[in-house]
Amino acid sequence: MQSRRILIAQGGGPTAVINQSLVGVVLAARGVRDVDLVYGARNGVRGIVNEDFLDLAQETSHNLELVANTPSSALGSTRDKPDLKYCQEIIQVLQSHQINHFFYIGGNDSSDTLRILSLEAEKLAFPLRCIHIPKTIDNDLVGNDHTPGFPSAARFVAQAFAGANLDNASLPGVYVGVVMGRHAGFLTAASALARKFSDDGPHLIYLPERSFVLEKFLADVKEVYQRLGRCVIAVSEGIHDESGTPIASLLAETIERDDHGNVQLSGNGALADLLCEEIKSKLHIKRVRGDTFGYLQRSFAGCVSDVDQREAREVGEKALQFAVQKAHNGTVAIKRSGSYSVNYELMALDVVAGKTRVMEDELIAASGTDVTEAFHQYLRPLLGSGMPDSFRLRAEAVAKLRNKAG
Amino acid sequence: MQSRRILIAQGGGPTAVINQSLVGVVLAARGVRDVDLVYGARNGVRGIVNEDFLDLAQETSHNLELVANTPSSALGSTRDKPDLKYCQEIIQVLQSHQINHFFYIGGNDSSDTLRILSLEAEKLAFPLRCIHIPKTIDNDLVGNDHTPGFPSAARFVAQAFAGANLDNASLPGVYVGVVMGRHAGFLTAASALARKFSDDGPHLIYLPERSFVLEKFLADVKEVYQRLGRCVIAVSEGIHDESGTPIASLLAETIERDDHGNVQLSGNGALADLLCEEIKSKLHIKRVRGDTFGYLQRSFAGCVSDVDQREAREVGEKALQFAVQKAHNGTVAIKRSGSYSVNYELMALDVVAGKTRVMEDELIAASGTDVTEAFHQYLRPLLGSGMPDSFRLRAEAVAKLRNKAG
Repeated sequence: MQSRRILIAQGGGPTAVINQSLVGVVLAARGVRDVDLVYGARNGVRGIVNEDFLDLAQETSHNLELVANTPSSALGSTRDKPDLKYCQEIIQVLQSHQINHFFYIGGNDSSDTLRILSLEAEKLAFPLRCIHIPKTIDNDLVGNDHTPGFPSAARFVAQAFAGANLDNASLPGVYVGVVMGRHAGFLTAASALARKFSDDGPHLIYLPERSFVLEKFLADVKEVYQRLGRCVIAVSEGIHDESGTPIASLLAETIERDDHGNVQLSGNGALADLLCEEIKSKLHIKRVRGDTFGYLQRSFAGCVSDVDQREAREVGEKALQFAVQKAHNGTVAIKRSGSYSVNYELMALDVVAGKTRVMEDELIAASGTDVTEAFHQYLRPLLGSGMPDSFRLRAEAVAKLRNKAG
Repeated sequence: MQSRRILIAQGGGPTAVINQSLVGVVLAARGVRDVDLVYGARNGVRGIVNEDFLDLAQETSHNLELVANTPSSALGSTRDKPDLKYCQEIIQVLQSHQINHFFYIGGNDSSDTLRILSLEAEKLAFPLRCIHIPKTIDNDLVGNDHTPGFPSAARFVAQAFAGANLDNASLPGVYVGVVMGRHAGFLTAASALARKFSDDGPHLIYLPERSFVLEKFLADVKEVYQRLGRCVIAVSEGIHDESGTPIASLLAETIERDDHGNVQLSGNGALADLLCEEIKSKLHIKRVRGDTFGYLQRSFAGCVSDVDQREAREVGEKALQFAVQKAHNGTVAIKRSGSYSVNYELMALDVVAGKTRVMEDELIAASGTDVTEAFHQYLRPLLGSGMPDSFRLRAEAVAKLRNKAG
């Protein structure tokens, strides 16, 4: 076999641990004798057509370890979703540099890019090995128990709702927190792990896996508010009516779409504000507050799951091992093997490419506004060690004296 | 002297460390021989007129330590700002229970309540000792180097912008983060401590201490975007035009006001969305995203400054000591005594009551869109230990080959 010439890139939305996977590939490649070069492409596939490469052989292992612990894509990212012509350009550049291994760290769009690329390379008889390394906070890749990046984002969401619940308990009212996730509700569902005491919020959870009916929503909020005097609500940005129309877009005056035709859901507070206005005007509750977690949930510096860090590193290392040990393209998948441990497998690219996993029915409560115990068991080990805990005063109430005295 | 009967309450917006102060008083009181009882009032002054007390003598010191480390007000809080009649009701209840010490943990409104209460008690010859324990994420109490709660919120803001900057660097565009602070810009200014490399964001910081001019803002953003290809902006929710009208209220269709007549600035995403729309439409930049940090910044579970924890505990303990050692009312103030160490003083209530500190001129850069080195020196030690750090790839670019080859 000819010597290995490796290119790595990062695509799509960044995560807290995406650099772990990058560094996993780079450090593992250093231990392989027939590796000639390891390049990184700036800004995903965009950096390939621009021939914008970094020579990662120049990186010290110490700096790589520091970069691994830095959130967001160190190589830069892109939202480009290459068509056939774009993929042909990519192949031209790879041929110029005699690159024969391409590792792409990304979500379903990135795996689909690799699928197209691998077919085109085969057609041209260009010996290119394409390995997809999973990453997405949405946790929406099929064939995976979960995806790197999701556990840390889930931890942020759980910690955020733990705090929001305590804040709401001290100054009661209604609180709406809007969480990322266009089609898959996993990240919104993670809010359930904020609860400790039986009356803790979130009291209601709205997922894109279930149709959103405004009247039902208002009735749910009213019931909780009457029972507890307060209500904490987790809402996915992707909630939609029965026709599939996003609730966010029902009110947005100008709708921004990305290159994939998707409505922009994050980066504005419209959905939270809409829901708060409905609650104020229809239920006549005065203190109603809404937060859109926005970019904080995927890029907050200093909220990371150690399990996620370890696994994101391992999928990178395994990707390199699979490339060396197996003679085909593929995507590295995480399989749960114990409670809690995982194995990694190399699956065919078209198992995940362009497909979207959503929450399985057994993870969603019959009410449609909560998760099941199975979801708790699924997510709990992923959040990692050192989760903050909350405690309450337990002292008894003092007998009233004023009326007696007065 | 008669035996001491102590009541503690928490007022205003909760913080990450407000329970440290509560526990500081309670545990210190356990070491004082003539303390008869230690009660906590639920929901601030509201819980006093409702005679809604907990007997804190029943708390184990172990549970108190756990509560101290739990964010948000464990006793509950209130936005009530008592008038004279309300204060007379408070005094009636205190008299019923023969309570002769009242410790109120809160901001300038809470200290003003204590001022009114102490004058009324004096008039009635009711021997009530009123001690104010400072707390506010806004850092707007005069006479204090800084206030407990601010360092942890500032840490959240710095970590949030550190992550948002990395996210923005990987997928370039304009990012607007809106931070709490009606009159004082300290918390927004804390975003400056997110920077490490010279091109790191936030690139622009807008504080309520300076009038906001939309045309100037757009010109500032345009300049940064043309220079760096991206722009990260920190904006205080309290920015206002030259007449003092909040920018947020210029666009809000329905304005909600609290009992103090203040426009509701937090709990909706209107300001961020307004600014993003202006940037998109006037500067024709496509990728513009806005986040409103909202309640996350004051209640996120798991982002706390250890310096803040320690000091919030100490102001509680000192409050109790001052009550025992000094024969007058007052507010506990934090004074910086070294780099970095603090002392505590008991100042007269009217030094802080109802007054608002804003950022001193020497902390704000001449440009009006940044802070000075003096601000960095002021804030850096408050953020505490273990701040996340960020690192970059340092490898050199690879020479382009395609044109040569083609």
